[in-house]
Amino acid sequence: MKRVIIVGMGFGGIRAAKELAGKGMEVFLLDRNNYHLFQPLLYQVATAALEQESIAYPIRAMARRWPDTRFRLTEVCGVDLEGKRVLTSEGPLGYDYLIVSAGSETNYFGMTSIAEHAYDLKKLEDAEKLRNQILGLFERAVKENDPDKRKAMLTFVVVGGGPTGVEFSGSLVELVRYVLAKDYPELSITECRVMLVEASNAILVSQPENLRQYAVERLRRMGVEVLLNTAVIDAAPEHVVFKDGTVIPTHTLFWSAGVKAAPLAGALDLPKAGGGRIKVKPDLTVEGHPDVYIVGDMACCQQDGAVLPMVAPVAMQMGGYAAKSILAKQSDRELPPFRYHDKGSMATIGRSSAVASAFGFHLSGILAWMAWLGLHLMYLVGFRNRILIIMNWAWYYFFHERQVRLITMKEAGPPQCNWK
Amino acid sequence: MKRVIIVGMGFGGIRAAKELAGKGMEVFLLDRNNYHLFQPLLYQVATAALEQESIAYPIRAMARRWPDTRFRLTEVCGVDLEGKRVLTSEGPLGYDYLIVSAGSETNYFGMTSIAEHAYDLKKLEDAEKLRNQILGLFERAVKENDPDKRKAMLTFVVVGGGPTGVEFSGSLVELVRYVLAKDYPELSITECRVMLVEASNAILVSQPENLRQYAVERLRRMGVEVLLNTAVIDAAPEHVVFKDGTVIPTHTLFWSAGVKAAPLAGALDLPKAGGGRIKVKPDLTVEGHPDVYIVGDMACCQQDGAVLPMVAPVAMQMGGYAAKSILAKQSDRELPPFRYHDKGSMATIGRSSAVASAFGFHLSGILAWMAWLGLHLMYLVGFRNRILIIMNWAWYYFFHERQVRLITMKEAGPPQCNWK
Repeated sequence: MKRVIIVGMGFGGIRAAKELAGKGMEVFLLDRNNYHLFQPLLYQVATAALEQESIAYPIRAMARRWPDTRFRLTEVCGVDLEGKRVLTSEGPLGYDYLIVSAGSETNYFGMTSIAEHAYDLKKLEDAEKLRNQILGLFERAVKENDPDKRKAMLTFVVVGGGPTGVEFSGSLVELVRYVLAKDYPELSITECRVMLVEASNAILVSQPENLRQYAVERLRRMGVEVLLNTAVIDAAPEHVVFKDGTVIPTHTLFWSAGVKAAPLAGALDLPKAGGGRIKVKPDLTVEGHPDVYIVGDMACCQQDGAVLPMVAPVAMQMGGYAAKSILAKQSDRELPPFRYHDKGSMATIGRSSAVASAFGFHLSGILAWMAWLGLHLMYLVGFRNRILIIMNWAWYYFFHERQVRLITMKEAGPPQCNWK
Repeated sequence: MKRVIIVGMGFGGIRAAKELAGKGMEVFLLDRNNYHLFQPLLYQVATAALEQESIAYPIRAMARRWPDTRFRLTEVCGVDLEGKRVLTSEGPLGYDYLIVSAGSETNYFGMTSIAEHAYDLKKLEDAEKLRNQILGLFERAVKENDPDKRKAMLTFVVVGGGPTGVEFSGSLVELVRYVLAKDYPELSITECRVMLVEASNAILVSQPENLRQYAVERLRRMGVEVLLNTAVIDAAPEHVVFKDGTVIPTHTLFWSAGVKAAPLAGALDLPKAGGGRIKVKPDLTVEGHPDVYIVGDMACCQQDGAVLPMVAPVAMQMGGYAAKSILAKQSDRELPPFRYHDKGSMATIGRSSAVASAFGFHLSGILAWMAWLGLHLMYLVGFRNRILIIMNWAWYYFFHERQVRLITMKEAGPPQCNWK
């Protein structure tokens, strides 16, 4: 039985595994976590709307149902392309075919002060950390008598006008207005600021002009300060600095202004493109290694003169293609080159409000929001997780209540006593 | 308006707060966490049966509905009894009445090697840590070729035959047999051992003889090795030592063989009893300070010649009494001494199996289990949490599946690569 190794169980990895399972191949799934993470909803964990467990699904719960498939919780350190071996923290593991789908990480473009102080949303623990930070600051603000210090604690700067920045800032301002305003009667809601800062002159650039406009207006009406043509160039624990010199006192800088390939890409001796992504051929393999596929955010794939974006639908289609291509090769066939079918994109802004564009249709408002709900539920793995999330969303929709407002880690906790 | 400060929002604290709210007193609630924790279900979080969020409830979500009640997230360092001030990490806070209900912590009876290596279940993060440890060891075992090392990884030693030890070991053995056995087809279930070690000659001593016997037999049938008259006296990262010299290779020692008053008790200059508990008068106040009440696990209260046990029902009744006693004093009345009404006790052993005794009735099996379910749901705070937990339990009951088997912290994660 020929062996396929899949590195990384994100959207691309699970799609590939599903496609390969039970087709006469031995499949090894490698990941540093024991769960598949539904990253697009991390911002809802960060804003106390969902439990972290509801957007993570155990890989073994999937692999159980896939014949000849094994999972290994491990760190992949590199690949010996000549020897056809994946180098893991427990030693090498040989392969006949390899699919690398290790995803991406946040790109701070070399700005070390920002990398040091910013929060981001790539991992499950990032979301919990950010939630603790937000709720912890409200608790500190209640005890702070200096109005300037209090204001700094309640100022949140979100950088990047892509879907993550828009969804996070919209969800955060709703958390503050509908939930925390009631939790903290001692605080005045007007002291709290949520700023969405974007370096270019528009947010949600993958959306058409009218929807971008809708999103900006909607966010502003909800209370988000949308600042276009504004860049953050420096950060410290208690302030950030804009390019024009403005200093904004804040304890919370959220960065969603860039992504780059995961570090594993750097460990592979293969030609790179921008953001450290690995250049792939039209069949998603790499030059000289027809048995090695790169899929998802790590792959730099040209189509119609443009590079495909680092988003979940691309990763899923690539994962499916790589698996089918391997199976085709096993029966001495060859697939036509990979082609991404863009089914549109969407972003939610707030309760009952989203933008969506697909096949030439432009939707905004509650219809787009319902489309967003349905699509996210569809792609979520695990029936129980779906029920959990529907329950949470319904709760929030009808009662304006978010229950997961727990401070669970101690970073944001109170100082310890000396007498202990 | 006279001010009451309640330190600690466990079972005693919330009962007192509920009773005092809206009765013309200013109430301050202090806790080092921003949530009330339903400790009796921590073992289910540790065994992947429940999300941690489902057994924690934000204190502000309760305090919102309570007039003149404020919450402060803080660490209480001590009490200035003469000056009538609580000393918090942010400074002193004056009171007219004080209710101290800071609970208990695990008692290792001075055995430092055990304190260093054992897991316990008092805090929310303890449960997450223990879950990560259990699941992480199964992941390591899959990659381990040495059968002895593998066996040590899959051996779990639970110390203490009280409800926590019984419930945890029962739930763990079910997790292994019904869930992990399917997740890890590479491992043989017979390599896995769950040992319940009790120093005395019986488990569940608060239950009548026939139910104790039932519990032991039931646990043994489920696959738990119940060892009576056995004490653990030493521990290291990869083994524990029994009093008779037996060395058991294991990576996981769970300790539920003792509790003592929380460290705050030690900071109060008041007469102590065994386990560091503060001696209280029949009205739960302390000698010389009729305005200071000690309730719950911290209080050592005699009744009918015995000390009341450190359990949730005692704390709840004490909290309610202290609040009523304060209100009575406000209208120049005085309550009769505190009297604990024992409504019985119960412990669940496994799916469809529990023991319960109350008012002279002895129940075991599925009836006791249903009583256990109902009672725990009733005392759980928050309607949403109840639904969540019912959903999880039903899921497990019908599908033999526990979904929360995530490794979320990195203690149990794989070693890092050098090339990073």
